[in-house]
Amino acid sequence: MSATPRYDVLGIGNAIVDVIARADDDFLLAHGMRKGTMALIDEGRAQAIYDAMGPAVEMSGGSAANTVVGVAGFGARAAFIGKLKADSLGRAFSHDIRAAGVTFATLPESDGPSTGRCYVLVTPDGERTMNTYLGAAQDLHPRDVNEEMIASSAVTYLEGYLWDPKHAKEAFLKAAKIAHGSGRRVALSLSDAFCVDRWRDEFLELMRSRTVDLIFANEAELHSLYQTSDFDGAIAALRADIAAAVVTRSEKGCLVVGPEGIEAVPAFPVERVIDTTGAGDLFAAGFLSGLARDLDDRTCGRLGALAAAEVIQHLGARPEVSLRQLARENGLAD
Amino acid sequence: MSATPRYDVLGIGNAIVDVIARADDDFLLAHGMRKGTMALIDEGRAQAIYDAMGPAVEMSGGSAANTVVGVAGFGARAAFIGKLKADSLGRAFSHDIRAAGVTFATLPESDGPSTGRCYVLVTPDGERTMNTYLGAAQDLHPRDVNEEMIASSAVTYLEGYLWDPKHAKEAFLKAAKIAHGSGRRVALSLSDAFCVDRWRDEFLELMRSRTVDLIFANEAELHSLYQTSDFDGAIAALRADIAAAVVTRSEKGCLVVGPEGIEAVPAFPVERVIDTTGAGDLFAAGFLSGLARDLDDRTCGRLGALAAAEVIQHLGARPEVSLRQLARENGLAD
Repeated sequence: MSATPRYDVLGIGNAIVDVIARADDDFLLAHGMRKGTMALIDEGRAQAIYDAMGPAVEMSGGSAANTVVGVAGFGARAAFIGKLKADSLGRAFSHDIRAAGVTFATLPESDGPSTGRCYVLVTPDGERTMNTYLGAAQDLHPRDVNEEMIASSAVTYLEGYLWDPKHAKEAFLKAAKIAHGSGRRVALSLSDAFCVDRWRDEFLELMRSRTVDLIFANEAELHSLYQTSDFDGAIAALRADIAAAVVTRSEKGCLVVGPEGIEAVPAFPVERVIDTTGAGDLFAAGFLSGLARDLDDRTCGRLGALAAAEVIQHLGARPEVSLRQLARENGLAD
Repeated sequence: MSATPRYDVLGIGNAIVDVIARADDDFLLAHGMRKGTMALIDEGRAQAIYDAMGPAVEMSGGSAANTVVGVAGFGARAAFIGKLKADSLGRAFSHDIRAAGVTFATLPESDGPSTGRCYVLVTPDGERTMNTYLGAAQDLHPRDVNEEMIASSAVTYLEGYLWDPKHAKEAFLKAAKIAHGSGRRVALSLSDAFCVDRWRDEFLELMRSRTVDLIFANEAELHSLYQTSDFDGAIAALRADIAAAVVTRSEKGCLVVGPEGIEAVPAFPVERVIDTTGAGDLFAAGFLSGLARDLDDRTCGRLGALAAAEVIQHLGARPEVSLRQLARENGLAD
């Protein structure tokens, strides 16, 4: 039997600072962006987009990083591994994640590319379109995976985006091996439909080989994974490939897919969607914080829905209120 | 007679990036901060405050800079003079003010202190408490005052905070002299009650010597200026000292004080105050954009109140919507 874990959730992901601006649909068209998706860009394109975009707000982001900040917001114990440069954006990222109560100790690079940035364009409908310059996140390496931290985390949570930087997938696989060797669980977010398109076969292999125990996907990612527009067919394929999965469906709520069956969990009503950035990340935060307390599938799904509803009602991918308090107000925590 | 001005409003101020976090009243007490005011801090204290404060958002700020961004948002022509360092915060400030439509050409410093920062703590009541590390803003110098730009601006708008850096007051006086020599107007914001306390005699001298034609003050600044708690008495003293002034009174609206009398203008109702940062700056923006269109005192005051109401309903001191559109929706613009 494993020792009591020190962390409920340890996230591994690209350490990114979001540079957020409002834009209209014409801006996306003029700059060849596909609405609602994440595109990888180089430094030259990053500069061109920044020069063209409107006044911006800088806010720490990164998918798995947002998730562990949410986990800490629910009062669970969270840690993060991700690569920064020792520059001013890197210092802001470190400050923000630690100030949110997350343990973060990955050494920043002193040389090489600057801290990763994501240019987030938010359209009037609240949808976000992301352009990521990975920068220093490119340099996440297996040696950054702290064995002792992984071994003492109940869940190691990995973002699919880690398949993009060169060595990060090795870090990912090393972490999964340590976690399982210590009797812990491994979860994966599929991140983005185009990310799935880039790494479909490898993601399926991670699931079929039981390298991951639980996946988080939205509908677009699920359709991309199985290259089908047939939702029910994709769900059936998913059940054959992995023991546990959560499929998020925006305002339609989510499906918690497990060995005993499928539970449909409703979303929380939202008055006005301001910015969908971080919706999936915060859903995962709520769900995982429920898992950490051994709650049932439905309650985990409701906690996910609650955190997602909070984050889409304001700009930025980090919660603005205490999620723990919000859960209490909604009868989902003591 | 003067040539048609190229700019409606040119602002001169400390170029500052705001680092904004939520905090409770206990945090302010524990760190010896006086709620609702601006304190000047050195680099060591800046680091200590940053280490202690919660997750933050970085957003361009600076009092006069916020005002000219608002002026541009109303569709008027705006320019700015202020000192940055050529570092990443400096690049963000330059990007944001230009992307907002403001002409900004002051050369950044390549050496010396980093770009100025203001640590803004927002308490649950929406009040903001500011701690400013001036950094590169210390180095604003009379040579940065572009004579041709001042001469072709209908109003040169100066923030009282300029009295804090070493050479900025000389820059201020040079600009005022050029403006008057070109038949233009000079406006001054009193900035902060403690700033008035530091520079009371000089501010009064600026008014009495007709170096400034119009001042903006809130109640606390007015009381500090005349060292009295008698509001009516302070207004009478103000009328004796300057031809035109606007006194803002939060939810009680404002008084436009002119040679012909005093006009009381109501505020716009606000559902919930999120963050008062920039309220005074944006009030001045609305008022000055009205002046640029030769509107009457009442309409200028209403435009000020409208912009202030917008900015206090979200985090940060820059407007999130088109002020021009907002003015149209409220019958204050065509």
